[in-house]
Amino acid sequence: MLNFVFHNPGKIIFGQGQIKMLGEEIKKYARRVLLVYGEGSIKRNGIYDEVVKILNDNGIFYAELSGVKPNPRIDSVREGVKLCRENNLELVLAVGGGSVIDCAKIIAAGFYYTGDPWDFFTRQAKVEKALPVGAVLTLAATGSEMNGNAVISNEETREKKGLGSPLLIPKFAVLDPTYTYTVSPLQTAAGVADIMSHVFEQYFSANNDAYLQDRICEAVLKTCIHYAPIACAKPDNYEARANLMWASTLALNGILATGKLTDWATHMIEHEISALYDIAHGVGLAILTPFWMEYVLTEENLAKFVLYAVNVWGIVDKDEKEMADMAIEKTRGFFKALGLPSRLREVGVKEDDLEFMAARAVENGSLGRFKELDKDDVLNILKMAF
Amino acid sequence: MLNFVFHNPGKIIFGQGQIKMLGEEIKKYARRVLLVYGEGSIKRNGIYDEVVKILNDNGIFYAELSGVKPNPRIDSVREGVKLCRENNLELVLAVGGGSVIDCAKIIAAGFYYTGDPWDFFTRQAKVEKALPVGAVLTLAATGSEMNGNAVISNEETREKKGLGSPLLIPKFAVLDPTYTYTVSPLQTAAGVADIMSHVFEQYFSANNDAYLQDRICEAVLKTCIHYAPIACAKPDNYEARANLMWASTLALNGILATGKLTDWATHMIEHEISALYDIAHGVGLAILTPFWMEYVLTEENLAKFVLYAVNVWGIVDKDEKEMADMAIEKTRGFFKALGLPSRLREVGVKEDDLEFMAARAVENGSLGRFKELDKDDVLNILKMAF
Repeated sequence: MLNFVFHNPGKIIFGQGQIKMLGEEIKKYARRVLLVYGEGSIKRNGIYDEVVKILNDNGIFYAELSGVKPNPRIDSVREGVKLCRENNLELVLAVGGGSVIDCAKIIAAGFYYTGDPWDFFTRQAKVEKALPVGAVLTLAATGSEMNGNAVISNEETREKKGLGSPLLIPKFAVLDPTYTYTVSPLQTAAGVADIMSHVFEQYFSANNDAYLQDRICEAVLKTCIHYAPIACAKPDNYEARANLMWASTLALNGILATGKLTDWATHMIEHEISALYDIAHGVGLAILTPFWMEYVLTEENLAKFVLYAVNVWGIVDKDEKEMADMAIEKTRGFFKALGLPSRLREVGVKEDDLEFMAARAVENGSLGRFKELDKDDVLNILKMAF
Repeated sequence: MLNFVFHNPGKIIFGQGQIKMLGEEIKKYARRVLLVYGEGSIKRNGIYDEVVKILNDNGIFYAELSGVKPNPRIDSVREGVKLCRENNLELVLAVGGGSVIDCAKIIAAGFYYTGDPWDFFTRQAKVEKALPVGAVLTLAATGSEMNGNAVISNEETREKKGLGSPLLIPKFAVLDPTYTYTVSPLQTAAGVADIMSHVFEQYFSANNDAYLQDRICEAVLKTCIHYAPIACAKPDNYEARANLMWASTLALNGILATGKLTDWATHMIEHEISALYDIAHGVGLAILTPFWMEYVLTEENLAKFVLYAVNVWGIVDKDEKEMADMAIEKTRGFFKALGLPSRLREVGVKEDDLEFMAARAVENGSLGRFKELDKDDVLNILKMAF
């Protein structure tokens, strides 16, 4: 097990009706907030009204930043920073999924930075200070509600880049599973693919001595596999929504990564796809993951795939290579059964772009640590997945 | 899944050599500390010298409280509070296992309380404020390094009582698995029994809709079962010590309890045993647990024991009741194979005391939520275990 530091002071307020604690939580930090949300689904399902009523009842002033897109744009961040400064705001409250929370985080950091917030992503600037961020989660997927990560897209440069800072961990996040009842089956499935991909990136690690963490990875995967079909078929099944929501948080709050040399190649490749094509991150991951697995599987790491086969899919009593292949096929079939696409061409990706995406993916060096990938490897995976 | 709030800001600094970060961590909070430790094992294995050197090198003043016993006494707490006041100390640094950390926590709380610290345990006083606590862990067992719990014994009243407060979560804890190399096989086994018992108390819960948490419980149990024999046979096996150490922390840092109606009857019964007899908590738990399982198993909760049998012990293709019985027998056999006693009489408990212990266990009402136990139930379990 590798040495690590684990420190996640994020507060999770979980369950139906827990929004009632929102006013008190905000007032620990602020009386003036920026309310950040997406393209209006929270207005249709009533969450917006509920939040605004709480802000009003608690005498909390708010300015609004709406229209944050699924792959959130640096333009939204810039606008949010401006609003915070103009209105002397003290906390950024994200109401939405991971994109909205990511956007809120960079607004919070941008507030204290005199340059352009894209500088954080080009590594020209470092997050040194940030406004407190709070979140009301409406989608089980990214885990952004309990980590310091943010991924932002730049339409101008057609780039999608991420960063992480402990300063950006939301001070609190309200997780009400009923808020995900209106999430469509396809979005639910994409969210699950995102959760599972986070786990894969940490499960398929370069070191194999973190037994405990691997078993916890399998716990999260089994939860996704068990409940995703239920949530897609019965959108208002509380047990399914609750388990998926907590799974999304635990998948990426740092625990699974403790003591491990994690991979993240699939995520890096996917970022290049959704930088060019505005597809859901989870959809891109669902397409790429089985091909990545096929591509990286070797005799040396076969044992890890066998563990995956046995402990996650219950595949036993077969030749080891056969078990690994079956597990990969199960993974592919699982995503497909949830209605997710399984080829890049299905989501409008053009074959001519693959070369460009592969080149950009390795711009800062090779990818992955479970198996290191150079540009040719990435291109091969993209071609397989095309 | 029940509503919950999860908030654990404890910082874990994990791995060989991580003690090098101790000076910096302390200086975030204090320049004057109380160094709390046990009966001298840290002097024999060199950890004391290492810590003292770091304190000196960093110009940190320290007073010492030594001799904290395995079932820590309220007398030690009183002495620690006095030392903190006399020396204007600003942080309590525990170097040891759970007992030392528990003692440090109540010293930290007692510092700000004008009455006697035992009042916290009789519920005459509430922890309102506490000095920061830091920990250097030397035993994988209680999980005290990342929670706000403390259990203290009162020799005068022959009581052993616990409390929990988020104010008592250590600000930081250094977890170096090599610090447990000198822990004897029997102590190692008792620690593992403690970890597993923490998991059982949360796994065998009154609600069954926290699927994710149950799978994580199984992950921790499998880790204990896998590595305990290795750590007992090869005390300096880093992988085993590391996995057990991190398992001890995750077993009781709040995550497993999220969304669950947990039990804790076995712990409450054990406290009455170790209040009268100075036996290791883990030993008492190892004895009681299989009997508790046998006693509470009914047709209604059989399914949970079947899950335990299948997912933890790999028992399949049998009649359900048979699977449950086998799993309980496996549990008993596992503890026995580690050299732990399996009867109360083996550790010197007198049959005449069982009645008294049972009565005191239910003094504040019935125990347990997986299955509620009244005085007769507790007495029956104690008699079975005698």
